[in-house]
Amino acid sequence: MTTFSPEIQAALAQQAIELPSWAFGNSGTRFKVFATPGTPRDPYEKIADAAQVHRYTALAPTVALHIPWDRVDDYDDLRRHADDHGVALGTINSNTFQDDDYKFGALTHEDAAVRRKAIDHHFECIDIMDATGSRDLKIWLAEGSNYPGQADLRGRQDRLHDSLATIYERLGDDQRLVLEYKFFEPAFYHTDVPDWGTSYAQVAALGDRAVVCLDTGHHAPGTNIEFIVMQLLRLGKLGSFDFNSRFYADDDLIVGAADPFQLFRIIFEVIRGGGLNSPDVAFMLDQCHNIEDKIPGQIRSVLNVQEMTARALLVDRSALEAAQKAGDVLEANRIFMDAFYTDVRPALAEWRVSRGLPADPMRAFAESGYLAQIAADRVGGVQAGWGA
Amino acid sequence: MTTFSPEIQAALAQQAIELPSWAFGNSGTRFKVFATPGTPRDPYEKIADAAQVHRYTALAPTVALHIPWDRVDDYDDLRRHADDHGVALGTINSNTFQDDDYKFGALTHEDAAVRRKAIDHHFECIDIMDATGSRDLKIWLAEGSNYPGQADLRGRQDRLHDSLATIYERLGDDQRLVLEYKFFEPAFYHTDVPDWGTSYAQVAALGDRAVVCLDTGHHAPGTNIEFIVMQLLRLGKLGSFDFNSRFYADDDLIVGAADPFQLFRIIFEVIRGGGLNSPDVAFMLDQCHNIEDKIPGQIRSVLNVQEMTARALLVDRSALEAAQKAGDVLEANRIFMDAFYTDVRPALAEWRVSRGLPADPMRAFAESGYLAQIAADRVGGVQAGWGA
Amino acid sequence: MTTFSPEIQAALAQQAIELPSWAFGNSGTRFKVFATPGTPRDPYEKIADAAQVHRYTALAPTVALHIPWDRVDDYDDLRRHADDHGVALGTINSNTFQDDDYKFGALTHEDAAVRRKAIDHHFECIDIMDATGSRDLKIWLAEGSNYPGQADLRGRQDRLHDSLATIYERLGDDQRLVLEYKFFEPAFYHTDVPDWGTSYAQVAALGDRAVVCLDTGHHAPGTNIEFIVMQLLRLGKLGSFDFNSRFYADDDLIVGAADPFQLFRIIFEVIRGGGLNSPDVAFMLDQCHNIEDKIPGQIRSVLNVQEMTARALLVDRSALEAAQKAGDVLEANRIFMDAFYTDVRPALAEWRVSRGLPADPMRAFAESGYLAQIAADRVGGVQAGWGA
Amino acid sequence: MTTFSPEIQAALAQQAIELPSWAFGNSGTRFKVFATPGTPRDPYEKIADAAQVHRYTALAPTVALHIPWDRVDDYDDLRRHADDHGVALGTINSNTFQDDDYKFGALTHEDAAVRRKAIDHHFECIDIMDATGSRDLKIWLAEGSNYPGQADLRGRQDRLHDSLATIYERLGDDQRLVLEYKFFEPAFYHTDVPDWGTSYAQVAALGDRAVVCLDTGHHAPGTNIEFIVMQLLRLGKLGSFDFNSRFYADDDLIVGAADPFQLFRIIFEVIRGGGLNSPDVAFMLDQCHNIEDKIPGQIRSVLNVQEMTARALLVDRSALEAAQKAGDVLEANRIFMDAFYTDVRPALAEWRVSRGLPADPMRAFAESGYLAQIAADRVGGVQAGWGA
Repeated sequence: MTTFSPEIQAALAQQAIELPSWAFGNSGTRFKVFATPGTPRDPYEKIADAAQVHRYTALAPTVALHIPWDRVDDYDDLRRHADDHGVALGTINSNTFQDDDYKFGALTHEDAAVRRKAIDHHFECIDIMDATGSRDLKIWLAEGSNYPGQADLRGRQDRLHDSLATIYERLGDDQRLVLEYKFFEPAFYHTDVPDWGTSYAQVAALGDRAVVCLDTGHHAPGTNIEFIVMQLLRLGKLGSFDFNSRFYADDDLIVGAADPFQLFRIIFEVIRGGGLNSPDVAFMLDQCHNIEDKIPGQIRSVLNVQEMTARALLVDRSALEAAQKAGDVLEANRIFMDAFYTDVRPALAEWRVSRGLPADPMRAFAESGYLAQIAADRVGGVQAGWGA
Repeated sequence: MTTFSPEIQAALAQQAIELPSWAFGNSGTRFKVFATPGTPRDPYEKIADAAQVHRYTALAPTVALHIPWDRVDDYDDLRRHADDHGVALGTINSNTFQDDDYKFGALTHEDAAVRRKAIDHHFECIDIMDATGSRDLKIWLAEGSNYPGQADLRGRQDRLHDSLATIYERLGDDQRLVLEYKFFEPAFYHTDVPDWGTSYAQVAALGDRAVVCLDTGHHAPGTNIEFIVMQLLRLGKLGSFDFNSRFYADDDLIVGAADPFQLFRIIFEVIRGGGLNSPDVAFMLDQCHNIEDKIPGQIRSVLNVQEMTARALLVDRSALEAAQKAGDVLEANRIFMDAFYTDVRPALAEWRVSRGLPADPMRAFAESGYLAQIAADRVGGVQAGWGA
Repeated sequence: MTTFSPEIQAALAQQAIELPSWAFGNSGTRFKVFATPGTPRDPYEKIADAAQVHRYTALAPTVALHIPWDRVDDYDDLRRHADDHGVALGTINSNTFQDDDYKFGALTHEDAAVRRKAIDHHFECIDIMDATGSRDLKIWLAEGSNYPGQADLRGRQDRLHDSLATIYERLGDDQRLVLEYKFFEPAFYHTDVPDWGTSYAQVAALGDRAVVCLDTGHHAPGTNIEFIVMQLLRLGKLGSFDFNSRFYADDDLIVGAADPFQLFRIIFEVIRGGGLNSPDVAFMLDQCHNIEDKIPGQIRSVLNVQEMTARALLVDRSALEAAQKAGDVLEANRIFMDAFYTDVRPALAEWRVSRGLPADPMRAFAESGYLAQIAADRVGGVQAGWGA
Repeated sequence: MTTFSPEIQAALAQQAIELPSWAFGNSGTRFKVFATPGTPRDPYEKIADAAQVHRYTALAPTVALHIPWDRVDDYDDLRRHADDHGVALGTINSNTFQDDDYKFGALTHEDAAVRRKAIDHHFECIDIMDATGSRDLKIWLAEGSNYPGQADLRGRQDRLHDSLATIYERLGDDQRLVLEYKFFEPAFYHTDVPDWGTSYAQVAALGDRAVVCLDTGHHAPGTNIEFIVMQLLRLGKLGSFDFNSRFYADDDLIVGAADPFQLFRIIFEVIRGGGLNSPDVAFMLDQCHNIEDKIPGQIRSVLNVQEMTARALLVDRSALEAAQKAGDVLEANRIFMDAFYTDVRPALAEWRVSRGLPADPMRAFAESGYLAQIAADRVGGVQAGWGA
């Protein structure tokens, strides 16, 4: 393959992947967070770093914020700052896991006062959305319990519905509530939204502007994730992706690093279901660059998504359909794998150059000296991490 | 604890667990099916064996049939035969996995003629239900694919809806469609109804008399099954259980054998959610006694469910609620575990005797000589197994 | 990349992958075995089919036999038959899972008479090896238990040692005992050789000519298989591979079909550890073509191994070593992935043609009409399967 | 059952479970560490808290230290402090995961200077052992890599051997090196000692005083842990347990909380293999009381081990052996389960009272007011956690 068809080029040109501000701060495991020279000290520096990813790839026009980690005094100012750097502010992520009051839950808590506090936090997030122009309020509930008997599973589910309904009511007409599910962690016995079924049932009970976020790292071992992608698209409830990859649990590795073929299958189902470059389905990253450089880690990630999108677009769908209808297992698989095994990198490099981008964004960024510069510039202060 | 409260005695007295006719035939793995002397040769003998379980436990008043394995010429006659043995015919299970035409699907097949054949099979099952007086049509779809690209996941899901809707239409007003889900096997890449979310979405699209069957062995590793029990009860869609236990995949071991505490937690959520002895939630076994004697294997199974139900009924729910509200993790867990660790067996033995049952059903059956008798009587013919 | 280096060409020219005779017979799940027209009725026809794979790929010069499935009256005759078809007989696989006496174990059984019978079966296998000129006796122990308490785990391990030692003693000086491990199935509670550690400990206690067989489908979810490959090579005990792939359990799918990147990592560690084209490490397939055509399924499989070997040979190991030493995570990963993402198929096609082979073995076989011919020729008789 | 046999009483009287000092400090997940009033500020306060566990249970006579977390100026003084509180210092645990130099490994690092630093750290630990009178040096290697290609798996294994051999040489004649394995975390692609096989191969290459530590939370999903217990005892290499429990990954929950029957099976194999109250096999806890009170959490844990030991001692081993030899699956399982289901708590309470201990240690501790007192006393300072 030497070049892409016009249709594929058009699809690639539209692709946009939102970056998480927290990917530019320090992260780690419960055992250790390794620091890196040049790590941002505030949301302004995070956005500056995120803008580098977009500059070299044209793939990452927006940056998601996490409240309270990215709280600032003046969101208009932050918005202008982003605009000055060529990016925009995106999804607002709430946080119900770092306040001492939330030890036993937030939106699900037995105590109405704690629930009220957590709902108010989401109201603040909506206020921020109004200021930033963000469409999506993303809620990941880190709520659950560690020991059988500790919690009333059913009561918590009912309270969750009530809390979400209150938050949903507050949203503007053009805003969405996006509910993420996760198999486990930080709770180790039960999690209040552990699977797509629960997230789907909860958002279906809210209304049309409530949708599901699928984080590719948040499933039980062996789960067929592309099946869930297909099903949520079919049900009209796939709101967004949090891309990353994993070998074991929620490892938060670079998307495509652990099982590239799985990423291919996922994106193929997105295309099959009409979700590629659809306004209904937001592509986002949610990763932790614990040991690798963060900005190149993000560049590598958006490139991985782009490369796999190009491969998935190459699938000869009419030939595939014919083989499927004929029950020709090996031929259908061959057609599918042929696209996966095609090396799209030369054509992508050429296409990038045609659009005024570097052929090799990783190298161009490395040669820019940006990492050395921020390491020199950002001395003193407290590096951003997952602490508030 | 020396005796049960009247409330617990009443709950125990109501308990009924349906037996699968196929548990009395031979079963095994893909590597080997070991035969046993005395194995039934036809549905009549299976029912006779199932009746033994009820005779010694008073826990198993009905027997589920599997079509075509249990096809007979005259279902009225089979019904009378069951009645003569003190049991009744229960759920009708369809089979879409053993016909050569179903190699690539049945209700989901690309070919309308194959779908039609599979739908007609379910019509036959409904006709049998009319004859046997069965309420539930249980559908386990062994459909899926083995290789990425082989199948159109989305198209199959849509066709599944259409097929199920056609079958649902045919049901009588007092009949239900029960859709079982399974993580994997016999398909190894994708399964068309792999999780509770898919089963729920499919039955919700059909109507009130379509519900979900939860087989305790059909989940990904680490799945919190009692959470799903809670959620399906909350959503009004838990139709039945297929009880068994597992260490790895769908091992189909005796219920409670692999993780008794999990069974305790499951039954506790059934009680918590109002599902115990509710007409809406059928308790059934679905097991394979590959290496152990089948009738005692079934007796052991229903006793395991009964013993765990007694334990779960012992949970001091008001004390538990107080500890939960107080955020007292260790005390809530202690209250929960106290019931689990209580040895209910002596009280159950006493209660059985008070109802004219043997204190130790396993021993009483062993001493009856029934196994030796059927081994002597059932000579010749073809032992029943999973073949049609 | 347009062509391979002479070193890579030499490595590819040496590659040999043994085929399992049973891959050409029917196989399936416990639910159904689908038959296919043209399926071999005896070992002679299996070898004829296996020879087709070699004819179109030059990758599969030997065929493994399974006793008793491949028992014949005259092994010299079978050997000549293979020779006439351009292949040779390879590993002899024993079977301790299909005799009624082995219901509770064979080499591990409580009863010395059963152990004796199982040992004698292995003596028969060694006699066959002497006749066929086979080097390796491969033992997969399908032994274990289904219920806690059923078996004395420790006693069985000791008896296993004694049985293996007796068998090992009988081997000729140029013969090897290869012990396969498997996580679970057909036993569902404990398996007597469930992991590489147990296989290693057992063969280390026997002697130098006892080694481990690594079946890529026989691990717990999430297991890093290439790590085990590295470790066994390091310990000098990696005797052979059973290649296949899996999404869930021992799915026995075509190697490379489920996670091609995993296969790449495995073969890279083989190369890194000196195991490629080493006489010490046999490459074999162990797969079940339940729903796809068997001969093309085997051709696809050996091509997958070949293609992934070519990719793994392309890794720039000196650059990789430099990046590893420098702690440059992203660069090391880039070098590694660059080889994986390189499309080696055109160069392989060219190289095949240069050696008088078809550029596209799958197509060449399809066009040969062989499948139609055996379907026409092999009428009557009993198709080979897993039954004895 | 009303009372224990003299043999069981003797076994119970000998039981000792080592407590980890870090269980009394704060712990949590990567998302949040919740603090608790009264949490120790230094090793002295940790030991004081640990002594409470022993005071109420007589089960926990020793406390393990973690270096550098428990570094003090004068270990003689710490030893006297422990003695004054009725306990002794136990295992010394090293730490190779919290120094910035160890980002890419410690004992396995590419750079000899970093390996030297990590070895020196272990020499310091041995010096501390000499001062504290500790026998065991426990090494958990948090080393590995996050991305394929990042690390030379084989080279790291060889360097690990060299580093361990150097440390082993330094040990005194009565000291042991105990090597722990862990499936994953904090590394997410490969871990240098991921399984019992690797730990076994490494310690076997060192010598008799190098043994394996089995942490019950460090296995792949579905792993049969009691099988590994059996195997390591059989091979003479089971050095110690780190007890805890898990539903998903290394959850570090209270031992016995997640799957009590698994704990029963593990302890049964310990007894079966001669490891109960053997000097060769140390029982230790390794847990994180993220949300529950720490001292009662530890009391609950040692009681869980004691209760399960009592149950496992009740197994009628001669009857079990007879049923196993007879191939009576259901009877063998019944005998096994009978012990598990026996409620040993009343007999244990009685036995405790006979030894001058409180019948209910949890309640006695709660009523002592100790938690309130330390909350009042320990004001100011920095609470101990996993930071150095």
